[in-house]
Amino acid sequence: MGGVTSLTGVSVVLLDVNETLSDTSALSAAFERAGAPGHLAPTWFAAVLRDGFALTAVGAAAPFADVGRAVARSVLSGQVPVESLEAAADAVVGAVGDLPLHPDVPGGLRALVAAGLRVATLTNGATEVSDRLLSAGGAREPVERLLSVADAEGGSWKPHPAAYRYALDACGVEPGEAVLVAVHPWDVDGAARAGLRTVWVDRTGTPYPEVFRAPDATVRSLEDLPRLLRRG
Amino acid sequence: MGGVTSLTGVSVVLLDVNETLSDTSALSAAFERAGAPGHLAPTWFAAVLRDGFALTAVGAAAPFADVGRAVARSVLSGQVPVESLEAAADAVVGAVGDLPLHPDVPGGLRALVAAGLRVATLTNGATEVSDRLLSAGGAREPVERLLSVADAEGGSWKPHPAAYRYALDACGVEPGEAVLVAVHPWDVDGAARAGLRTVWVDRTGTPYPEVFRAPDATVRSLEDLPRLLRRG
Repeated sequence: MGGVTSLTGVSVVLLDVNETLSDTSALSAAFERAGAPGHLAPTWFAAVLRDGFALTAVGAAAPFADVGRAVARSVLSGQVPVESLEAAADAVVGAVGDLPLHPDVPGGLRALVAAGLRVATLTNGATEVSDRLLSAGGAREPVERLLSVADAEGGSWKPHPAAYRYALDACGVEPGEAVLVAVHPWDVDGAARAGLRTVWVDRTGTPYPEVFRAPDATVRSLEDLPRLLRRG
Repeated sequence: MGGVTSLTGVSVVLLDVNETLSDTSALSAAFERAGAPGHLAPTWFAAVLRDGFALTAVGAAAPFADVGRAVARSVLSGQVPVESLEAAADAVVGAVGDLPLHPDVPGGLRALVAAGLRVATLTNGATEVSDRLLSAGGAREPVERLLSVADAEGGSWKPHPAAYRYALDACGVEPGEAVLVAVHPWDVDGAARAGLRTVWVDRTGTPYPEVFRAPDATVRSLEDLPRLLRRG
């Protein structure tokens, strides 16, 4: 665990969804079912964020599913027959909502609530996908609010400050009362710049990229969060 | 060729560098030399842009090589021995400057100059890398200026408008007198929003992502550009 060993004054835990709660390694199966190599899955996911952030950088936005489908068409082009491209792109985007939760998620979320914390999710995707993932994984109940940047000003994706501001307003808290929990360093960075506390979830022991603001703390599992955040 | 069949009034051709001029498919060899699968190369490149754009979206910036090294460490973590990680990350970033040019580049650039157009490059990377790539490929001479977003206001990466504004100022032209030529739809989109004319280079016949502004024209090769841009 890097940085501080406790974070006090936090009442709301704001969790990223894709890859933070869901296990995106299972996306490779969706590419294989489409007849394409499974190793295209991480390229696809990085490129979806790349293109979504490119729009964010110019003050524009598009729904996650639209960006996801457009990138899937590009990545799958030449890999699947032209007449199957639309169906394959739809299948990849649909698979994001069918991923399993990481094993530490259901227990971790319940333990946060038991420790007196409010739990919400904030995704660049659709709240329907968050609902599907959490419900299927038996972890919907501890989550008070499912939030999406689609409802933020201008539909701005994280890491734009408007995305975090929307979530703070929806939960009725000040930046310092919320902690953003994510596996993505760009999300930690954006939240830190927006004034939130931050925790980086590093399940695999990778180096944190020093181009981004460092998290207040690092955990290996969501089950480490209650100890870190237990209220005064 | 999509869109218009000629673009008049253009005096400066502003070319993106990585993947537009250089053949990034050769990056897979750098991953293989490091002992990692070659298919990590496109994931690395998409993730470098993802993280650079994330910083751009919050009004920050870092040098391309720093972002590239940080992402390489993450992507290679668990793939190469810990003691080799730094050297492997450096090797991946260095390999970007050792890529071959696409075969249409030297002739395409010379033909643009022969058609009376000024040629410049604008990269999110370093001008030294552009110089290395073009010099090694025998295509340095037609290029009047090698520009980098590192010299733009705030060091903002494309697609932020400040990056294109810097290039226009450096060349002394108005937006409508310059055409941005790139393989990346996000670059076409950013340039179009900044008022430039745009050409998408699509060497492989992939669908253009409809979440981005469409290019004024599409070409399969840089050798198609002079016909499109020939001056009144």
